[in-house]
Amino acid sequence: METTQGHTGHMMMTEDVGHPSISTRARTMQDSPIRKLSATAEARKKQGVTVYHLNIGQPDLPTAPIVFETIRELELTTLAYAPSNGLPQAVTAWRNYLRQMGIEIEEKELIVTSGGSEAIIFAMCAVCDSGDDIIVFEPFYTNYNGFASVANVRLNPVPLTIENGFHLPSTEEIVKHITSRTKAILICSPANPTGTIYSKEEMQRLADIARRHNLFLLSDEVYREFAYDAPVHSVMSFPEISDRAVLLDSSSKRFNVCGARIGALASHNKEIVQSAFRFAMARLSVASIEQLALIPLLNSPRTYTQPIVEEFRRRRDTVYEGLKEIPGMRFYRPEGAFYIMIGLPVRDSERFSRWLIEEYQHNNETVLIAPGQGFYASPGQGVSEARLAFMLKSENLKRSLGILRHALEVYKQFS
Amino acid sequence: METTQGHTGHMMMTEDVGHPSISTRARTMQDSPIRKLSATAEARKKQGVTVYHLNIGQPDLPTAPIVFETIRELELTTLAYAPSNGLPQAVTAWRNYLRQMGIEIEEKELIVTSGGSEAIIFAMCAVCDSGDDIIVFEPFYTNYNGFASVANVRLNPVPLTIENGFHLPSTEEIVKHITSRTKAILICSPANPTGTIYSKEEMQRLADIARRHNLFLLSDEVYREFAYDAPVHSVMSFPEISDRAVLLDSSSKRFNVCGARIGALASHNKEIVQSAFRFAMARLSVASIEQLALIPLLNSPRTYTQPIVEEFRRRRDTVYEGLKEIPGMRFYRPEGAFYIMIGLPVRDSERFSRWLIEEYQHNNETVLIAPGQGFYASPGQGVSEARLAFMLKSENLKRSLGILRHALEVYKQFS
Repeated sequence: METTQGHTGHMMMTEDVGHPSISTRARTMQDSPIRKLSATAEARKKQGVTVYHLNIGQPDLPTAPIVFETIRELELTTLAYAPSNGLPQAVTAWRNYLRQMGIEIEEKELIVTSGGSEAIIFAMCAVCDSGDDIIVFEPFYTNYNGFASVANVRLNPVPLTIENGFHLPSTEEIVKHITSRTKAILICSPANPTGTIYSKEEMQRLADIARRHNLFLLSDEVYREFAYDAPVHSVMSFPEISDRAVLLDSSSKRFNVCGARIGALASHNKEIVQSAFRFAMARLSVASIEQLALIPLLNSPRTYTQPIVEEFRRRRDTVYEGLKEIPGMRFYRPEGAFYIMIGLPVRDSERFSRWLIEEYQHNNETVLIAPGQGFYASPGQGVSEARLAFMLKSENLKRSLGILRHALEVYKQFS
Repeated sequence: METTQGHTGHMMMTEDVGHPSISTRARTMQDSPIRKLSATAEARKKQGVTVYHLNIGQPDLPTAPIVFETIRELELTTLAYAPSNGLPQAVTAWRNYLRQMGIEIEEKELIVTSGGSEAIIFAMCAVCDSGDDIIVFEPFYTNYNGFASVANVRLNPVPLTIENGFHLPSTEEIVKHITSRTKAILICSPANPTGTIYSKEEMQRLADIARRHNLFLLSDEVYREFAYDAPVHSVMSFPEISDRAVLLDSSSKRFNVCGARIGALASHNKEIVQSAFRFAMARLSVASIEQLALIPLLNSPRTYTQPIVEEFRRRRDTVYEGLKEIPGMRFYRPEGAFYIMIGLPVRDSERFSRWLIEEYQHNNETVLIAPGQGFYASPGQGVSEARLAFMLKSENLKRSLGILRHALEVYKQFS
């Protein structure tokens, strides 16, 4: 850099010394594997091709009308800052919701956040300094990469395999990934992108590892209600790690209110909550109207989640049965959520996905899937996998899998 | 850390190896200087003492009714994710708003954010890697500390002085703070906490420094309309730094919609916008209802800002006149925003502020002010200063300053 010592006052004539360059973290942040083919899909639709979206996690069901009724009946005169930890009524509603899920949290142990996204960023910042790492099981929710990039935390991936339905490997295998800078394990059960639900034994092993290695256990439980074959065990149901457990939650999926951006962070560890509160104070508050709009849902959750969950159970069954019909497909029965990672009989699922959306059509229809690689941090992992989201009615899901089957037959001839 | 190599399977009996500890950044994050005495104030009120709040920046005026009318008339059936860069209507409304302010931005050059807060975090992450620094002029908006902590950026403070109304020092003085890791200058004009508006000459000097030293110029312009004696010069009105200028904005203050949390980031630098978009994709979207609710305000801004700005101009005048009546007070005429940093005739304004709220009363009344130190990053700076916010009607502001004058007379006898 040019030295300017001795130069004072207003410089009338200056020249740029170079081009301004963005940060490495911004430059290296990957594009969303879920959305990256969306633009191409839109172009294809303009050509008259029907595209079935199996790539996105935006539920296609309507939101409960009570949300909009609540909004219409709000009697506000000023849209003032809410308290940084949440409007008192909203905090109470979250406690009521969690209590009905068997999770006892005091109101002072919870911070309302801007979606589950912010809860995860706050948790990462609360437990990690720059360069510390957090164990994640891959494939994992791809946006964890973005949060880690903002928080300057390294994700430390432990691979799972499709062969055992993406359940945990041995304790020995997990433990060998722990470094001197590992501060936490971040889990998601029921999982995005796999639909896997960790058993009680698996959760117990994670709790034991957290204690033995002095780690926090950060648990993303936004799909809690979407459990079809197995119960969900919250991180909060292991009292021996009450000082290590951090619950990360969001109302988006279970109530189909993704656009509201209302989540929560809860912990019995006072320091964690206080840390999250400080980060929350810096961003002042979460949107007031949406906090208020969701209160009826949080107070009577099952009324609103049950129909949604039943619909997704049907879809899960449809997908599972449909996949059986596709030769060479590797898959399993996802126990929860509304995703599955499938193993395709192709070498490179990203190429295949692009071909599907750029070139292929059958009776003027094609499907859009999310290539698997983007859900992994380890290079070369997931190259033949893809995530399917169950965001279409069963009938259309069935049709989509028929298209996928046909497409694989055609594709085989090329490769 | 205890080695567990060779240990496998479910550990039935484990012991904690230590207490889980939060991160250094969470531990060292300061409490909000604006809110830290609030709990004490609440306790004092319960004892029957009237407390005039001169500490907070929450406008006391009602929000324009059209916001609530818009919400009541929304015809939504699903509260779906908005696009990560903002709902198309909201993006258009922001462009319309900026155009009316003389700032030409294309829609693809703007990202709607969750308040100005998120715009600042995105900008910090887009230009800085961990450990890079950003020049700020102190005193500065205290929440910059929180954003820097989340983004792992070091704030590199250049001191301003009350003697010249917190205007910029010489270019030489600014430039000598630049390090090899300085990536940007972050400014706020009209400024929180000083009310200072940088002149065209000052803005030109900053633009020149940015070019000469290959820096970005991040400009927090959320108080744009609150300009009483001098015009505001947007960072976007210096075409020679169009690739270095990043506009950070928020609707909170100008429209008195703090609880909506709707801000924006805009730049002609494609890479910056693309970076912000990637960070935006990770958090998915901004609350949809509040994006829609503010569209009428953004489309006809002056209708709604003018009465608010006029009221604050009156208050600024009241405060300025009132301060003249207080012996030993150091102050200046703030050109904009709705704050002033005052120099109190006391050794330690934090002690004085605490005494005001814990012990002092006159006719059962006292005032709450924000001690100055929290607005500085350099140790020992601002110790006799305090920030006043003009969030009371002129009559009550006048009364508050009378109380402050009396309190200082009483306090003098103690110290």
